[in-house]
Amino acid sequence: MSDAIHLIAAKQLVTVDETFGTPANPLGVIEDAVMVFDAEKILWVGERDRYPENLYSDACWLIDPKLTEDKVILPGLIDSHTHPVFAGDRAKEFEQRLQGVSYQEIAANGGGIQTTVKATREASEEELFALAKKRLERMLSFGVTSVEAKSGYGLDRQSELKSLRVIARLQQALQMRIVPTYMGAHDIPDEYKANPDQYVQRLCDELIPEVAESALAEFCDVFCDEGYFNAEQSRAILQAAQNHGLGIRIHADEFKAIGGCEVAGDLKAASADHLLNITDSGIAALKAGETVATLLPGTAFYLRLPYAPAKKILEAGIPLALATDFNPGSCMSENLQLVMTLACLQMRMTPAEVIKAVTIQAAKALKLEHQKGSLALGKSPDFVVFDVANYQELLYHFGVNFVEHVVIGATLVHTTHARPPLPCLSSFD
Amino acid sequence: MSDAIHLIAAKQLVTVDETFGTPANPLGVIEDAVMVFDAEKILWVGERDRYPENLYSDACWLIDPKLTEDKVILPGLIDSHTHPVFAGDRAKEFEQRLQGVSYQEIAANGGGIQTTVKATREASEEELFALAKKRLERMLSFGVTSVEAKSGYGLDRQSELKSLRVIARLQQALQMRIVPTYMGAHDIPDEYKANPDQYVQRLCDELIPEVAESALAEFCDVFCDEGYFNAEQSRAILQAAQNHGLGIRIHADEFKAIGGCEVAGDLKAASADHLLNITDSGIAALKAGETVATLLPGTAFYLRLPYAPAKKILEAGIPLALATDFNPGSCMSENLQLVMTLACLQMRMTPAEVIKAVTIQAAKALKLEHQKGSLALGKSPDFVVFDVANYQELLYHFGVNFVEHVVIGATLVHTTHARPPLPCLSSFD
Repeated sequence: MSDAIHLIAAKQLVTVDETFGTPANPLGVIEDAVMVFDAEKILWVGERDRYPENLYSDACWLIDPKLTEDKVILPGLIDSHTHPVFAGDRAKEFEQRLQGVSYQEIAANGGGIQTTVKATREASEEELFALAKKRLERMLSFGVTSVEAKSGYGLDRQSELKSLRVIARLQQALQMRIVPTYMGAHDIPDEYKANPDQYVQRLCDELIPEVAESALAEFCDVFCDEGYFNAEQSRAILQAAQNHGLGIRIHADEFKAIGGCEVAGDLKAASADHLLNITDSGIAALKAGETVATLLPGTAFYLRLPYAPAKKILEAGIPLALATDFNPGSCMSENLQLVMTLACLQMRMTPAEVIKAVTIQAAKALKLEHQKGSLALGKSPDFVVFDVANYQELLYHFGVNFVEHVVIGATLVHTTHARPPLPCLSSFD
Repeated sequence: MSDAIHLIAAKQLVTVDETFGTPANPLGVIEDAVMVFDAEKILWVGERDRYPENLYSDACWLIDPKLTEDKVILPGLIDSHTHPVFAGDRAKEFEQRLQGVSYQEIAANGGGIQTTVKATREASEEELFALAKKRLERMLSFGVTSVEAKSGYGLDRQSELKSLRVIARLQQALQMRIVPTYMGAHDIPDEYKANPDQYVQRLCDELIPEVAESALAEFCDVFCDEGYFNAEQSRAILQAAQNHGLGIRIHADEFKAIGGCEVAGDLKAASADHLLNITDSGIAALKAGETVATLLPGTAFYLRLPYAPAKKILEAGIPLALATDFNPGSCMSENLQLVMTLACLQMRMTPAEVIKAVTIQAAKALKLEHQKGSLALGKSPDFVVFDVANYQELLYHFGVNFVEHVVIGATLVHTTHARPPLPCLSSFD
């Protein structure tokens, strides 16, 4: 299997590769294309009638070309900001909110994030694994082949390590690339509400070093906002993470701009996320730090907040990624395609900007851009076959999941066909 | 088959039947329920441990109860406002709009609704049938078992009749209940732009009588808005339709309130739709006319217009339905569940209000309430099995299609299972 060479045909191969990109074709779309790949990497892409058949005489079709030659292929989508590890059900609380019960009343009755933290602390590793696995599989069904997964609903040492072990087990169980992020600084735990600095100290001196040592996380994240961690505390946490070899990312300017982007830029964080209230100074800081701006419009949609200024961020030349922010409190949706729709309709991004934001830019936000995020030679053969006439239809024709097949590393990991189409034809025509 | 008696089990059977409804349980939810039905009608609903086994000794499970007893069952959803019969592709126009090309420039280059009318006129009946069938099947996959379908993209006599014949063929081909609406008054055809009254006259004297005679439509609809048909013209058209035995409905107050609701109320129209700019006078008129208010938030979402005042309409005691408005110009989405999400998140309707709006109230909007829209004794056994823990999750956990099985008239017409689960077990336990 690992040595086998495969082919796939497409009406449009959306490479998102600069080699093929032009101002008129910003996504590097190849029409009537063929891609050649083995289990590890992409070997050749181009127009079907230029395919060098003699070079790949042993190649066989991964999927019968009759089933894909009228379809559109994109790189596997990347969801670079999710919180998939939690237990508990807040559906009835959602109803109460719409019936007019205030957030304060719900919280006073033990609702809100407390519900999730309590349930997550009480859940077994096995239970959390089963819950999170179903969520990641749902993401996969929407075309996501790489995903960031944060801890952060345990908050105490033991529950956070449990959450990170769940993420490690998910990586063993699933073919998606899962990037684990430690987010002990998701909120100030009840136990430290009277003395947040003491928790920051413990994070820096004890918890972050332990997590780094465990190798259970690649990144460390912090919620920098009013009522959560301030800029100084966030800086201390992220510096400790860097000192211990972790990559860093930050929740910044969601409710109020309190300096999170400036910290991100200074420390050259991989990504600053949310940014609903980003300032000109914040934009300048991200630009200087070569930090990716990750926007999460599903959360603005759910909370009915004004959307982040996507066009302004793009105009500043900052790489812009889009992600779901999947979480039980402010965006209970695994659907990255809905986020793409919101980006077009509500933030006025173009289809090309949106597709880059969930492929190559999201890869940069996770420091995966050398392996993932485009169909460039040498990169991983992770791709999605969509049942649309052109890539624009993916955005125009909204609310419909057009995913037909998802391939990761030359394996068909998801298909909507009742019988997986796997005809290993040895001839080209 | 037609005499067979079937059973289905559910964790929650959301009957939407007043018999079971209470102020605390407005949807008439029965927990741990069983429903008994034949191909024509529902025979019994209730708690599983009260099931009168001796009454239905020949009954067998339609689906293995182990597969549904932890699921939620709703009446088949009803999409009471759609425009599914058209040809042409406007995806690239969508991209142009986001790139900053004005609507005027697009129209000057032959884009906009002209594209759709031209392509629909040129398409064969066979082509239109294939396109519309795929769209209705997609609606079915979201749990829709009854759907209204309008003509209105042909505009000339021949193309409108062709569109209505397509709808009649769809009803032959699909098990969904399809309610055909004649909408020759969707727009003023180019041929009559100089003299709209002449077109109105022709509609009243020639086209509506011919459509009524053909029995190809149950309803007649008109676009009453600035730049389309004014209130006087709309009244003439709908009165002619009533005189020829057609039911009537109206597009009103979408862009401007020009008296459409008042016409609807006066003529006791089945439904007035859109209502983004409804006035107090319009609300009073709908109330007096016992006209259903049908809101189409997908269109407001797509066009970024302020949403219709749903809560105000509900407070006035007017029956409120929700529908997709599926169409190529202002809402290219077959997803009624997304509309339900928008109703909660953007119009602040409660889950119970939303579920009523796509079942019993939508049935009223189509004059189908005696057969459809609730799981009441004697009504059609059209229902959907959702893979959720409770009905609130359908709204809270958004962007995900939780439909697992769709049943129409005791036939499993759609399932997400690779192998349809059809164990006709003869014993109850």
